[in-house]
Amino acid sequence: MDADRLSVILVSTRNPLNIGAAARAMCNFGFHHLRLVQPFDPAFREARSAVGASSILTQAKVFATVAEAIADCTLIIGTTAIGHREIQHPLHVLKDGASAILQELAAPPDRPTRVAILFGSEKVGLSNQDLSHCHWLLHIPTGDEQKSMNLGQAVAVCLYELAREAAPPLPITDSPCASAEEVERLTTVLLETLQASEYTGRGSVESKEENVRRMVRRTQLSSEDASTWLGILRQILWKLRAKS
Amino acid sequence: MDADRLSVILVSTRNPLNIGAAARAMCNFGFHHLRLVQPFDPAFREARSAVGASSILTQAKVFATVAEAIADCTLIIGTTAIGHREIQHPLHVLKDGASAILQELAAPPDRPTRVAILFGSEKVGLSNQDLSHCHWLLHIPTGDEQKSMNLGQAVAVCLYELAREAAPPLPITDSPCASAEEVERLTTVLLETLQASEYTGRGSVESKEENVRRMVRRTQLSSEDASTWLGILRQILWKLRAKS
Repeated sequence: MDADRLSVILVSTRNPLNIGAAARAMCNFGFHHLRLVQPFDPAFREARSAVGASSILTQAKVFATVAEAIADCTLIIGTTAIGHREIQHPLHVLKDGASAILQELAAPPDRPTRVAILFGSEKVGLSNQDLSHCHWLLHIPTGDEQKSMNLGQAVAVCLYELAREAAPPLPITDSPCASAEEVERLTTVLLETLQASEYTGRGSVESKEENVRRMVRRTQLSSEDASTWLGILRQILWKLRAKS
Repeated sequence: MDADRLSVILVSTRNPLNIGAAARAMCNFGFHHLRLVQPFDPAFREARSAVGASSILTQAKVFATVAEAIADCTLIIGTTAIGHREIQHPLHVLKDGASAILQELAAPPDRPTRVAILFGSEKVGLSNQDLSHCHWLLHIPTGDEQKSMNLGQAVAVCLYELAREAAPPLPITDSPCASAEEVERLTTVLLETLQASEYTGRGSVESKEENVRRMVRRTQLSSEDASTWLGILRQILWKLRAKS
């Protein structure tokens, strides 16, 4: 995916904080091209909500019409909360639409594609005229209780979906599991501790031993944690025996 | 999934607008239980950003400590932007962690599970002490440019991922494709129009006809659109013939 082939286009946005929030989400997910059609507040570039993304705001391009803002784009997508309006466009939920967008963004260099995703104003979304420039519409599946999303949150969710599959693997922080030998060593010391503390349970010594063995295994300890528990139990055992 | 088994827990949130934005995202994706640990502003329930979600704010519970906020939960998850901190917990990217959360939320009624997802303060996230209450950590994969997300956007993205698979199907708005007969009827009228308008191209009549036939088919018209184009062309053809 070539993230630089995507433009986020905010149409008639009223609150500059939402423009800043959109810029921050773009930066979070590795997108850089922001375009604005008739933003309500010309001072949007100073939005404090664009934490870490002020360069996106500085470089954002402003247009007078949707037609001008999308002129160089090959795939134009509108976003909609559906709502009351009758939809006259093909409509895709975000996860399905994202596949089509990613395909367009991954076109070979000799096919210079450019994708635009349009977001409408906070109050009314995109107008029917704005939508008439779009190839199809994208919908974030929201419940009936509150269909309409906050603008900055809608931008974040859309860009997250686009970046979702491309995420680099995380550093592995899990320490390896304890070996059977380590687990059994711990079990033995635990049983000795139970004996030394005169902990009594019901049933025979054998069934108690089996219960403890199973219980220790259910904890699925890491090698490191098994070693720590072993140290704790040995200290307790030592103290118990010293007292007796 | 039983969405009522999930609690979103915001720890030491400074800006009440972020609490409102979190509530709105919860409402968007069908979650209702908000808990707050030491919110900075006691007037958070009036946050104007909670568009359509004021009942979530009204019913939000406030706690003095993380331990109290999670006391009835069976799976506790912390969110982290990773950043500089050394992570000492198992760590999952959102899409993988979401599967484990959904499994816990789908436990049978006789196993009353409750999941908590913790989000830290805007400036510093969750403290190491907060994290020590967690079973594992969740990370939204963000780029190196700007790892840290806005709080309301992070909540929205996490809840979107949880609701992603459960989304109801969209109403189908695509009209059916035009049949070969409809497409050929359109092609015929287009060819007649080209002739009547004396549009000339290179090559033979046959190759021009083949070009036009292919070009019409590449448009992949719906039945409805084919019918509209046919009407347009017939009108043009009628006008052209009336003039000559």
